[in-house]
Amino acid sequence: MKRILLDCDPGIDDALAIGLAHGSPELEIAGLTTVAGNVELEHTTANALKLADFYGIDAPIAAGADRPLVRDRLTAKHVHGPTGLGDAVLPEPESKPIPDHAVDFIIDTLAEAPGQISLVAVGPLTNIALALRKEPRIARWAREFVVMGGSYTRGNVTPAAEFNVHADPEAAAVALGAPWETVLIGLDLTTQARATGEVRARFAALGRLDRDLLTPCLDAFAGPDARRLGPALHDACAVAYAIAPHLFTTRPAHVDVETTGRFTAGMTVTDFNAAEKTTRVATELDQAPFWDLVTDALGRVAERLPAG
Amino acid sequence: MKRILLDCDPGIDDALAIGLAHGSPELEIAGLTTVAGNVELEHTTANALKLADFYGIDAPIAAGADRPLVRDRLTAKHVHGPTGLGDAVLPEPESKPIPDHAVDFIIDTLAEAPGQISLVAVGPLTNIALALRKEPRIARWAREFVVMGGSYTRGNVTPAAEFNVHADPEAAAVALGAPWETVLIGLDLTTQARATGEVRARFAALGRLDRDLLTPCLDAFAGPDARRLGPALHDACAVAYAIAPHLFTTRPAHVDVETTGRFTAGMTVTDFNAAEKTTRVATELDQAPFWDLVTDALGRVAERLPAG
Amino acid sequence: MKRILLDCDPGIDDALAIGLAHGSPELEIAGLTTVAGNVELEHTTANALKLADFYGIDAPIAAGADRPLVRDRLTAKHVHGPTGLGDAVLPEPESKPIPDHAVDFIIDTLAEAPGQISLVAVGPLTNIALALRKEPRIARWAREFVVMGGSYTRGNVTPAAEFNVHADPEAAAVALGAPWETVLIGLDLTTQARATGEVRARFAALGRLDRDLLTPCLDAFAGPDARRLGPALHDACAVAYAIAPHLFTTRPAHVDVETTGRFTAGMTVTDFNAAEKTTRVATELDQAPFWDLVTDALGRVAERLPAG
Amino acid sequence: MKRILLDCDPGIDDALAIGLAHGSPELEIAGLTTVAGNVELEHTTANALKLADFYGIDAPIAAGADRPLVRDRLTAKHVHGPTGLGDAVLPEPESKPIPDHAVDFIIDTLAEAPGQISLVAVGPLTNIALALRKEPRIARWAREFVVMGGSYTRGNVTPAAEFNVHADPEAAAVALGAPWETVLIGLDLTTQARATGEVRARFAALGRLDRDLLTPCLDAFAGPDARRLGPALHDACAVAYAIAPHLFTTRPAHVDVETTGRFTAGMTVTDFNAAEKTTRVATELDQAPFWDLVTDALGRVAERLPAG
Repeated sequence: MKRILLDCDPGIDDALAIGLAHGSPELEIAGLTTVAGNVELEHTTANALKLADFYGIDAPIAAGADRPLVRDRLTAKHVHGPTGLGDAVLPEPESKPIPDHAVDFIIDTLAEAPGQISLVAVGPLTNIALALRKEPRIARWAREFVVMGGSYTRGNVTPAAEFNVHADPEAAAVALGAPWETVLIGLDLTTQARATGEVRARFAALGRLDRDLLTPCLDAFAGPDARRLGPALHDACAVAYAIAPHLFTTRPAHVDVETTGRFTAGMTVTDFNAAEKTTRVATELDQAPFWDLVTDALGRVAERLPAG
Repeated sequence: MKRILLDCDPGIDDALAIGLAHGSPELEIAGLTTVAGNVELEHTTANALKLADFYGIDAPIAAGADRPLVRDRLTAKHVHGPTGLGDAVLPEPESKPIPDHAVDFIIDTLAEAPGQISLVAVGPLTNIALALRKEPRIARWAREFVVMGGSYTRGNVTPAAEFNVHADPEAAAVALGAPWETVLIGLDLTTQARATGEVRARFAALGRLDRDLLTPCLDAFAGPDARRLGPALHDACAVAYAIAPHLFTTRPAHVDVETTGRFTAGMTVTDFNAAEKTTRVATELDQAPFWDLVTDALGRVAERLPAG
Repeated sequence: MKRILLDCDPGIDDALAIGLAHGSPELEIAGLTTVAGNVELEHTTANALKLADFYGIDAPIAAGADRPLVRDRLTAKHVHGPTGLGDAVLPEPESKPIPDHAVDFIIDTLAEAPGQISLVAVGPLTNIALALRKEPRIARWAREFVVMGGSYTRGNVTPAAEFNVHADPEAAAVALGAPWETVLIGLDLTTQARATGEVRARFAALGRLDRDLLTPCLDAFAGPDARRLGPALHDACAVAYAIAPHLFTTRPAHVDVETTGRFTAGMTVTDFNAAEKTTRVATELDQAPFWDLVTDALGRVAERLPAG
Repeated sequence: MKRILLDCDPGIDDALAIGLAHGSPELEIAGLTTVAGNVELEHTTANALKLADFYGIDAPIAAGADRPLVRDRLTAKHVHGPTGLGDAVLPEPESKPIPDHAVDFIIDTLAEAPGQISLVAVGPLTNIALALRKEPRIARWAREFVVMGGSYTRGNVTPAAEFNVHADPEAAAVALGAPWETVLIGLDLTTQARATGEVRARFAALGRLDRDLLTPCLDAFAGPDARRLGPALHDACAVAYAIAPHLFTTRPAHVDVETTGRFTAGMTVTDFNAAEKTTRVATELDQAPFWDLVTDALGRVAERLPAG
């Protein structure tokens, strides 16, 4: 059993990533932390709470940074809808966030179990950067650091940059520059994880889970080529890596985050030939077992749901 | 009585600033927080503790960030000596820092007394930026935010940038961009506060304080024109502003911090004609009463010192 | 018959591009202009003269800029060899450059036949930028502007930038920003034009041309994947476009050149979804007819060569 | 007798600089070249021709670059009026520019008399940069290179940058980076040359020159502090340096031009302590003899004017 701490900004694909983590017997969720990203912090936190209630997750949820490390706020409401979960309407949360700030919860959680907990970040890396600056040793304490972010070819927000990195390039530079075991799950990988008609047909068998969450989320999920090819479940890929790394081809690379470019801020400049490699970059997804993994996990979640 | 929270990186002129605060009946020190800057964090924290012991200050001391928000570390050891207090040798500290991180101590201290405490920052602004990102409301809670940093003409580390801002430009951009009452005490002001021969003669009357601290500090204090014109007591000016703002001419301005320039990173770009003013920038010091203020305060400190 | 003005920095693939132009009955070479790039200007000019003598080209050759518009010089000698033609040793040139500077020759040539001459640039764009600034109307006078440069995914000199653009980003920004009919033939296209073993076998039938030039050039031509997949004939693609645009799929895009990035200078940031498209960007090469075109043209060159 | 080649963008203070050059027996004007700057090229060229006709200057006038090296156009019409000479209305020019482009005229003029001609540039440095890139040897051929531009403290267009450098930072980087004897006459110097009421009273004695040109120019000349302190005759200072360098205190410095800053583009970053000095930077003007020089020269111009 692997314990993961999931830093997220739900967000449609975050919702599926959380469901995947919850339904996977290989994982235990040590906590969820929220950050401003796809939508504002108040929404990402509310969504995390609602999702925990809906899924039946019993883990601490801590709210984090409400804006990027240095820059102005940037959201992706055109992709995730105004409150972040597309057309899904979940009940107002009964649970509450813990009083601790996400930054402290991350530090404390990793400190208490050095080498044991995988930190999985699927939003802008603001909380992670703040935690690193407050307690640099977390880079040694985390078992691994799995990030959904970046691209080694083209971006989605700009031709050069992917949303999570573009939204807070300085935080990404800090987070990807720290000396942990970093795995970068970028767009080149995640666009291989498209919920095609075939996938959606399997989801349709999940009853209330599909009806109340998956369908209203995924039908609304916009993004490049989403209509044509199916929406890419970016964040779920990072959780899947924590569960089943053997489904991913990775290549070592040196990754720099561009922070000063006029047209390229937030680009993950990925050098596969650098002398010093800092990061493992995911390049290929074994799609069939990935979708089995996702569907099985969501199936377990669906079974445990009370009748709606 | 005004309460100040002093974020510092002692540092020679920090040592005098702390002494000035301690010896001023108008001020109460709510706490000292330390940051990496003139020397490494371990030294700035040790120096804060040693100075508190030496001066007889009874206030919490909290250690903060050991490196800048985004960039690599930069010190000013060529100015302050390898451990930060020039040639002064103070006993190893008996007091200890509180367990809280400086960032939390700043947030909690300001939260407990909204509108009452002046935050005075005389080192790189890393702790301040981290605190703002963790708790944006501190910008409303602080009574004022007085910063020793920047210049509206020329720098000291580079032709464009002053050390505190140059050492962490992104943190300065965050701190100077927050909506508090900001007063910027930059080099244009602080170079008017040079400890000339005349000033040093007054310090010579302070007995052990001068012999054990001021002289070995100030004789070693390097910097542009320090030998010729006397060392500029940069940080003491910020504390003096908290005590006696009427000694300072200030002009409202819009201040941007350059973070992307090839030759100008860390410059405080100061527009006195901008439509929207964000900051009061100190331009002129009333020198005679300033030195009276400093000498009187240090005199009070000297009187209370045990025989060495 | 189309007239082309070829701005180049021979360079191994420039040598093949010149041969392709010379051997194509569809083209007439209005002139060659040289620029510092793969090697220094003295070598690119000497190589252009040697190649003209060797091929039997009777067209004016004008030397141009010996360094980039703003930045320091950058060469690619590790790819093209110390003097630019790999291991090929051609006789010292008998012809001489014309007295005119390349910039003036470009301006005058285009001015004399508005709408008739295709400007094909296969080196850094310094001459082109200087010509545009001296005579902005050339952007209207050229029939089209075909550039070998850039990439919309990954670079070859850095992860973000291709050599010709990286070597002079400011010139590329000027050249690609001018209002002509621009076609950008970047690495995404040119790496489809690899001289594989099969291609090399066809070249082997070209006798002295292959023995004295193609083989010693191509055997020495280094570059990413050159050994494994065959060297990519980048510059020949731009000339081939001038001859046979129907062999190329192009997509309209807005292209910005990054000039300020720390890690991304010289990147051609290519937005296929921009409201305002500025450039046609080549995406796919019809390889079989491309190699027929090249081999046929080189065959004509080979036939005309005197016995060596 | 010193020969000067004056590259200018008239412009009010350019008009006085040209008059000063013409009226100085120590100088011979080898030519005037024009560049886009204070107003568009068509206006700066027309103004140069009108001024030559008005003053009776018999020297070649060549038009140059109509826009900056890389960036978009920037004018200073709020300072110089819509056509560049404030409220002065001079007759349409009878003379014409020579057919040569300014860039070629600069190169040819310097080439013909190596070591003899002072190049004085009082507009954006576009022509100079283009000339350097076309013929790098001009940096050796010029006797000296005197530039009105920059500041080592504060700018006038932005807090960091002076107009001529801000309007074309890349050209300034090229021009100030070339290996000639460079003297930089920046705002720190030129704001010491304010046409105060006392100066204007002396001008009032110049009859038609004052009535038709000086007064309608200077009354309209806007700029920081122009109303209060008198307009600063920036460009005239550079010509005065060519005549009487002993009136100027200069300090050697290394000058870099910032081209990438978000808030600081066009700043002349001036390091007086650099190991390698590249430039002499003017710091102090001997005002009384400067105004004698100017008034005497304008007096000679006034005497030669035909009755208007």
